[in-house]
Amino acid sequence: MAPRFSVTYYIRAADAAEAKARALDIALEQTVEIPRDVVPKGYVEDEILGKLETLTEDPAGRPGFLATISYSDDDVGGDFLQLLNVIFGNSSIKPGLKVEDIAPSPGILALCPGPRHGIAGLRARAGIGENPLLMSAIKPVGLSTAELARRAHDFALGGMHYVKDDHGLVDQKNSPFDERLRACIDAVGEANAKSGGRTGFVPNVTGPADAIIDRARQAQAAGAGAVMIAPALAGYDVVRTLAAAPDFTLPIVTHPAFCGANVVSADCGFSHRAYFGTLHRLMGADAVIYPNFGGRFGFTREECLSIADACAVGMGGPKAIVAAPGGGMTFERVPEMREAYGNDVMYLIGGALLQQPNLVDACRRLVAAVNG
Amino acid sequence: MAPRFSVTYYIRAADAAEAKARALDIALEQTVEIPRDVVPKGYVEDEILGKLETLTEDPAGRPGFLATISYSDDDVGGDFLQLLNVIFGNSSIKPGLKVEDIAPSPGILALCPGPRHGIAGLRARAGIGENPLLMSAIKPVGLSTAELARRAHDFALGGMHYVKDDHGLVDQKNSPFDERLRACIDAVGEANAKSGGRTGFVPNVTGPADAIIDRARQAQAAGAGAVMIAPALAGYDVVRTLAAAPDFTLPIVTHPAFCGANVVSADCGFSHRAYFGTLHRLMGADAVIYPNFGGRFGFTREECLSIADACAVGMGGPKAIVAAPGGGMTFERVPEMREAYGNDVMYLIGGALLQQPNLVDACRRLVAAVNG
Repeated sequence: MAPRFSVTYYIRAADAAEAKARALDIALEQTVEIPRDVVPKGYVEDEILGKLETLTEDPAGRPGFLATISYSDDDVGGDFLQLLNVIFGNSSIKPGLKVEDIAPSPGILALCPGPRHGIAGLRARAGIGENPLLMSAIKPVGLSTAELARRAHDFALGGMHYVKDDHGLVDQKNSPFDERLRACIDAVGEANAKSGGRTGFVPNVTGPADAIIDRARQAQAAGAGAVMIAPALAGYDVVRTLAAAPDFTLPIVTHPAFCGANVVSADCGFSHRAYFGTLHRLMGADAVIYPNFGGRFGFTREECLSIADACAVGMGGPKAIVAAPGGGMTFERVPEMREAYGNDVMYLIGGALLQQPNLVDACRRLVAAVNG
Repeated sequence: MAPRFSVTYYIRAADAAEAKARALDIALEQTVEIPRDVVPKGYVEDEILGKLETLTEDPAGRPGFLATISYSDDDVGGDFLQLLNVIFGNSSIKPGLKVEDIAPSPGILALCPGPRHGIAGLRARAGIGENPLLMSAIKPVGLSTAELARRAHDFALGGMHYVKDDHGLVDQKNSPFDERLRACIDAVGEANAKSGGRTGFVPNVTGPADAIIDRARQAQAAGAGAVMIAPALAGYDVVRTLAAAPDFTLPIVTHPAFCGANVVSADCGFSHRAYFGTLHRLMGADAVIYPNFGGRFGFTREECLSIADACAVGMGGPKAIVAAPGGGMTFERVPEMREAYGNDVMYLIGGALLQQPNLVDACRRLVAAVNG
């Protein structure tokens, strides 16, 4: 028998009998996907077919049960997309099922070595100790490269550790990717020369499927400090491929664009912890952006802290990564966020800084507030 | 001013004022993503910022409104992932919003030429007239290549037009991709030689992000009849890149693995029509697999027919594609499906055929029933 990994699902069900039937259906659907009576005896039934390991009432009090199902490493076949397919491929389409937790086997951890840098590496590259990391985004789409580069310079001069493209900045005609990449790296370098800082520029890496990996390598060659990728758009293996490539050495920041349905519904998708924490860490993200509680999105404080916890908890292999809550952060909220997240966090703040009359001063006040 | 495309959103809201505020928030969030008071005048405000075009009560009677918002082609910058990001990137994370419809501009249609073959091309390659198409899947994972190839042979001999890999078949050790690809193409070719048919083998194309396009080309070189790709796993640009590549000529079948959260919740994601119809057609899929009504998934008859309609309706460019409902189809349901879908459909049936004592005979009975 090959080693097995396991997935815990929340199953909406009226009683234990219904929950068990649904759990056995998941075990079938996610592996052999044929009626139970024609599953071949031997290897297929004994090894490949999912096994229901435990079934308990939901401890969180939702109307349903938690089922833990184990799957064979053999079924994954060394393919990260197939790992996700086994975890939730077809069952994602059945309402009232949610992936609560993923417990990788040693084989899965070999397939998913995880982030190259993690939170410790991001801090080392920024030249800071165990303090919070700070990241801002240049925006909006529609500004010229010169205007965007000026904002990158000011964010860097003000002390932000990472300055990223807005995730809507791609290869638009008024700020083409190549031009913006060079201009922003130069602008951040100029600010670093003035300040003695080590701010890194983080371009948004997107584009045609046969060019996206090359564009990340182009960013590295040009002197970027990290790259940002939206896995729900670009595909779930892009980050893993880059994180595992021996000659790609930049940290990877993930953006949540287009992933919303995977987390916001109580009725489907993943728990916040499993999606933004476990899955992104297996993927090899070093920092994971998600909407903070109390901002303009609907995540609760508890959901956000479950993400931060999953970024840091021991996984038997992948390094701890950093939670990067964003989306409506303001100066006033710094004390509340410090209390919630402690030091192991990357604050993503943009719009509120741009509302201030002087961007460099605003950044410096933020740095002081976060470390004060 | 550049041409504009538009997106219609369902917005859950108690009244028109709340709906309007949420709609204006979408227009901001999806484009400039900064507070309204710091949006730069001129090009950014006039061109890039989304424009609320219409706001009406939901005609379907849900508790909310339909808002149509237009976006500039300039914002897309020739990047298909950015098109999806503009349509629903960050707003996907806000509960109570759903993409109902997408109305492409000529610029978007130039970026998305659509499928190479469409339903007409799939029929021509199968050598049939305007009859329903039939597709089966070899499975389960865990069988040897020889056993899977035997099933491919029997499906083809029985008259199925396309025989595909189960979407869980990747590069597992007991049936590696290369070996299975060759063996199944040979087995289907052998059946064609006996029957005079023109069945095509459809491998499941997955793998590392930097190898997946090459694997599709490998399938073409080996003589496959089409390829199958799961866009929600592999990334949303993989199909478009292949469909647009001059030297890639196979039809593309899409699989819904991992996409469920994008459609099953009333509270988020896309309408069935927009996701499986419009979006997959823009992407360049020739056939789109989705779970049929009355099977083991929860889609309604109306939702399924809205997909079939969106696959066929005039779009001012992209060819009509074929809806491929699957998931629990049985012999008994053929009359009901004929009545629902008519002839412009690809029946995907697998498990029910494998339950029959003789696979070739079972396929022949199905072919007769579908065309009878």
